[in-house]
Order: sequence, then C-alpha cells, then structure tokens
Amino acid sequence: MNGSKMLGVLGGMGPLASAEFMRRLTLLTPAERDQDHIPAVLWSDPRVPDRTAARIAGGEDPLAALLRGIAGLEAAGCGAIAIPCNTAHGWFDAMQAATPLPILHIVDAAAADLARLGIVRGTIGVMGTAGTLAMRLYQQRLAARGYDCLVPDEAEMEALVTPAIARVKANAVAAAYAPLADAATHLAARGAQAVVLGCTEIPLGIAAGPPLPFPVCDTLDALARAAIAWARG
Amino acid sequence: MNGSKMLGVLGGMGPLASAEFMRRLTLLTPAERDQDHIPAVLWSDPRVPDRTAARIAGGEDPLAALLRGIAGLEAAGCGAIAIPCNTAHGWFDAMQAATPLPILHIVDAAAADLARLGIVRGTIGVMGTAGTLAMRLYQQRLAARGYDCLVPDEAEMEALVTPAIARVKANAVAAAYAPLADAATHLAARGAQAVVLGCTEIPLGIAAGPPLPFPVCDTLDALARAAIAWARG
Repeated sequence: MNGSKMLGVLGGMGPLASAEFMRRLTLLTPAERDQDHIPAVLWSDPRVPDRTAARIAGGEDPLAALLRGIAGLEAAGCGAIAIPCNTAHGWFDAMQAATPLPILHIVDAAAADLARLGIVRGTIGVMGTAGTLAMRLYQQRLAARGYDCLVPDEAEMEALVTPAIARVKANAVAAAYAPLADAATHLAARGAQAVVLGCTEIPLGIAAGPPLPFPVCDTLDALARAAIAWARG
Repeated sequence: MNGSKMLGVLGGMGPLASAEFMRRLTLLTPAERDQDHIPAVLWSDPRVPDRTAARIAGGEDPLAALLRGIAGLEAAGCGAIAIPCNTAHGWFDAMQAATPLPILHIVDAAAADLARLGIVRGTIGVMGTAGTLAMRLYQQRLAARGYDCLVPDEAEMEALVTPAIARVKANAVAAAYAPLADAATHLAARGAQAVVLGCTEIPLGIAAGPPLPFPVCDTLDALARAAIAWARG
C-alpha cells in the first residue's frame, strides 16, 4: 500500500489533460483494489493565465497562479509535484526555487520514456505549443542527452498544431485528430524516428483516431510513469 | 469566467471513477478555452477504508478518513463538495454536520437526471454496491420522490455486480462490461423503465461496450451536472 506518499498534481492547464493524467496514473498503477492506488491531490485551476500568451505575446505572467497551486499542494501534505502541462515548465526553475517539494520535470519523464521505447539518441520530432517550442524546453534538455530535435515549421504551427490544441481545450477533441496526425506525420517524413507529444492536449487529440504508424512519446503517460516511480520508490 | 467558485471533489473511491468524474465535469462544461472551465480540487485518497466492508462486514469505519479529505478541501478554499462515490453517501449526514460547505448529494443528482430524461415516477432499477443497497440510499430517497426501486437479487449481486465493481477498481475495466450489462438487462426485464448506475465504477464498465437498449442514469454525469449547476449558479 502506498500509504505515506501523496502526489501533488498542479493541473487545470488544461483541465481535460489533467483529468486524463489522473486516469493514466490510475491505469498504469498495478492494483487489485482502491487501497493499492496512489493517493493524490489534483489542484485543477484553469484560471492560470495562458502560458504561451505570456511568453510570446506579452500576456499576464502565470507564475503567481502557479505558486498559489504549489502552496495549496504543500498545505495538503503532498510529497512531490507533477505538472501535466509542458508549457508551464518554462517556469520550472522559479517554481522549484519556491518549494522544498521535488517537482518531476516532464521533459526528463519524456526522455525516460524515449529510452523505454529503445530510442537513446538520434532525431526526435517534438510537437508542442508555440510557447514550449519558443522557450526551447525540449530542444535544450534533449540535446543535453544526445538527441536532435525537429519541430513543426511556423506554417504547420499556425495551420495545424495551435488550432488543434485550442480545440481540445474547447472540448472538441475529435476535431483535433486530423491536424495533429498531419503535423506528426510531417515530422516523421522529415526524419524523426519518434515524435514527442509535448503538450498534454495533444495525446487527447491523437487518442481520438487510429494510432500513428511510428513511435510516439505520450507525455501524459511519461509523467504518470515518473510519478508512479516516485510513489513506489 | 468561473472566477470565484472552486469545487471540492472528495474522491479516490475509487480513483479511476474520480478521475473520470473530473473528465465528465470538464466535457459537460461549455467552454472555449482553459479559463472558461470550473476550478476544482480533487482529493483522491484511495486509502479510505472500504465503505461496503464497513457497513456489512464489520470493517473499519471510513468516517475519519472522509472528514480528513473534507478538511483538506475546506483548507484549499473550496465552496462546495461533490463525492463521486455512492456508498460514501451512507455517511452523508455525519459529513454534512462536520462542514459548513454544502455537499451535493449524488442521489438527488441522480433524481434530477431521471427528470431530465423525462422519467418522473414509476419503477426504476438501481445497481450499486452491496453497501449502497443494504443502506437503502436510493430506495428511501427515490421513494420520497414517487419512484419505486428494483435492485438486483443476492445471486446477481454475488455473481455479477460485486465482482464487476472489483474489476474496475483493479483496472480491468473491459472485463466489467458483460456482467454489468447482464445485471442491468435483468432489471429492465423485471420492469424497470430506467436503470441507475448507482456506483461510480459501473459507468466505467458500461462505457467499455455497446450502449444499453434502455435509459440509464449515469451517476458520474449526474453529479457533474449538479456541480456545474452549482458553479454557474
């Protein structure tokens, strides 16, 4: 029984992705009954200012809202924090500096998942929000592990990825499949041996249609696996 | 924007059902972007002692664990509490006496959903845990609204409903469909004009196969609709 370790989940960015994170956390935990599962508190605050708008369009800074959530998870007695929003990791250092609790980094979780898939170097496609790509969250952290990153070009972002992410946030999940599958297929055609679904809305859209015919790293599953490893460790 | 009202969700009973409740809450909320969704805190504590075992087999009383969760949701600043576990409502009065926050009663939410389906009196089938049925949570509260309740017999509970609920809690969701569909079909054949899925694991199992050919009241959706009405009200 996972008696003493309670996971904190800083979510709501978006709320469907964080609900799905809780499902994946549960489904990936070996369990025979309720009491075998991992205790967790999900702080689902969709009012956090838009992370991409803050980074590339002069929008309101989300840090104060992120820190309110972290303080809430600390007060609840959590022992570590997972954040099922890739773009929010642009504020990782400031969040980690503000709490004694370890924050599980979603890019490290993705790298561990690529290794689990047997992919330990080479060219990786990365899909994400315009904010995540502009902050080079994956490009820098994966380069340090020996991967090269390919990302969608600006036209693909504007026509495919950005509107598809917005559709998921507006509950129009099925409509997000085709543009996301197109963008991922373009990355594979350009030489990516695997594609990281590096925005937590993207796996929801991709799950709404047939599986892609190349390896994908689902950052919801990757972060859930990292959280389970923490809880069991 | 749902700025000021934060929903508290006392969950983990089981954790897959409460994660699915958060998904339903999101999908049933009209929204165009993250900031349109309802702020919520999910306290997912699967360590709460088994509710049915406490009521019918002399197991540990869950009330202390339930009250710890409610205190955590109060401290987080929530304005109301939803509990996506039918059996836990056997402790409703004690929980409501311990908090100034309104607790949305899942049986009232189910009754509102029956009315939404156009069913305002008559014979209703109710599936639930052995604890929920033994406590007569639905039988009493629906009788007061003019419904008669039919429930599975003991043989159906032992062979079909109880093991299916356990399968969902052990992540074997697909294996729960057939026994749950059988039990529901028996209730319809005995004259139920609709069947209440009165344990939050049951809608997960039923969603794993073809839709049932008679009206069902899904208590996850019903409670989500009640929570949205509270948040918007």
